[in-house]
Amino acid sequence: MRNIGLILRYDGTNYCGWQRQKTEISIQQKVEEAVEEVTGESSFVQGCGRTDAGVHALNYLANFETKSNIPAERFKYALNTKLPDDISVLDSFLVEDDFNSRFSIEKKTYRYEIYTNEIANPFLRNYAWHFPYELNLELMQSQAKKIVGTHDFSGFMAVGGQVKTTVRTIYDAVVFKDGEKVVFEVTGNGFLYNMVRILAGTLCYIGAGKIKEDMKDILESLDRSRAGITAPPEGLYMKKVYFGEKHE
Amino acid sequence: MRNIGLILRYDGTNYCGWQRQKTEISIQQKVEEAVEEVTGESSFVQGCGRTDAGVHALNYLANFETKSNIPAERFKYALNTKLPDDISVLDSFLVEDDFNSRFSIEKKTYRYEIYTNEIANPFLRNYAWHFPYELNLELMQSQAKKIVGTHDFSGFMAVGGQVKTTVRTIYDAVVFKDGEKVVFEVTGNGFLYNMVRILAGTLCYIGAGKIKEDMKDILESLDRSRAGITAPPEGLYMKKVYFGEKHE
Repeated sequence: MRNIGLILRYDGTNYCGWQRQKTEISIQQKVEEAVEEVTGESSFVQGCGRTDAGVHALNYLANFETKSNIPAERFKYALNTKLPDDISVLDSFLVEDDFNSRFSIEKKTYRYEIYTNEIANPFLRNYAWHFPYELNLELMQSQAKKIVGTHDFSGFMAVGGQVKTTVRTIYDAVVFKDGEKVVFEVTGNGFLYNMVRILAGTLCYIGAGKIKEDMKDILESLDRSRAGITAPPEGLYMKKVYFGEKHE
Repeated sequence: MRNIGLILRYDGTNYCGWQRQKTEISIQQKVEEAVEEVTGESSFVQGCGRTDAGVHALNYLANFETKSNIPAERFKYALNTKLPDDISVLDSFLVEDDFNSRFSIEKKTYRYEIYTNEIANPFLRNYAWHFPYELNLELMQSQAKKIVGTHDFSGFMAVGGQVKTTVRTIYDAVVFKDGEKVVFEVTGNGFLYNMVRILAGTLCYIGAGKIKEDMKDILESLDRSRAGITAPPEGLYMKKVYFGEKHE
């Protein structure tokens, strides 16, 4: 058996998320079906994390085992001929036998995009949060920096998350303007359920003056009710997964 | 009766084009339905030109007459509450009684977007032509300049176009890189059926070395078979309509 790593890009608009569901169509199902078509084997594709319905990925890491002798780097081309046009394989490569996309990664970067114009942009309806308020970017940037470090993020976790610990390490958090959009990017060793969307919602509420509290106080309160709303899924992108020097 | 001008932005992916059709859903139908909901009158909305199925608009000009006393600038907000989220009204304003979006305009700019990476981008599947070839941008730029001026463009017209004259004046034509995309923009006093898409297809074929002829020779031949393919609709955007100083 060989273990094949994949970097995927997908538009999550038409899916229930990464993970297989009984009644809805997931990205995992589409990728597994493509692997089965290409290898003739039944397949399980391990992803680097769940993504919710409507959430996107610029670079998502996954891996699967196969007995086929197709060269690792050829899977990219073979799978792209089988996948729907809202999912692409950007790269395929051999990984160590014990490599697991969920457990072998060091850190991840998420990106959250916000469109603040008064009038909604038809081209961004599935790709950014339409939040039509003037945002104080400098304030958002300085407030974002306050989550950097190792903290208990239980105030930024949606109900339903089941985890051993709510402590996570955030390596960087930035807010900047990108064309007509405002972007929040955050890199950490892991994220609680809906954590990035709650952070994005809280920072936008602070930037719009709807929350007057300091991010540090909200964080230390461990109180979900003091943070902002959960920003909608369409603005969220898994941007990058770090898994050792070779494939960073 | 007052005559109201509208600037629309729309994602054309899910429509048969601007113009009403019996069996398919058009942008014109959606805008007329929104006007009828807002004014309570039956409406005809005049557009600035047909766009094909899948073609988009960043700024599309339209106008309609109404007896309602809603202030012209309020129509923007009222219509946006009724329109689907792939169509937005960016602006609304009073125009002269004899103003007609089709006949009163001076020039239009179309934009055509091309994505040349080897692997298709899921986020651009409906918004750019995936043409995975290395393009010589300098050559495309110098070749694009050869269509500037007043010429008979019958070699760049699809079968089915019915026009009194095939002579059009092109004021500017440019090719440039915009992020990961290659963009062709062309401004003229009018365009023949599929003319921008055939120009885009021809320039890309020249840029990829698939056509070795000079644009000037192709143009002067008046021979459709010497030009390149009709580039697909998803890359095409109506970018701007010029209709007098007041609303340029």
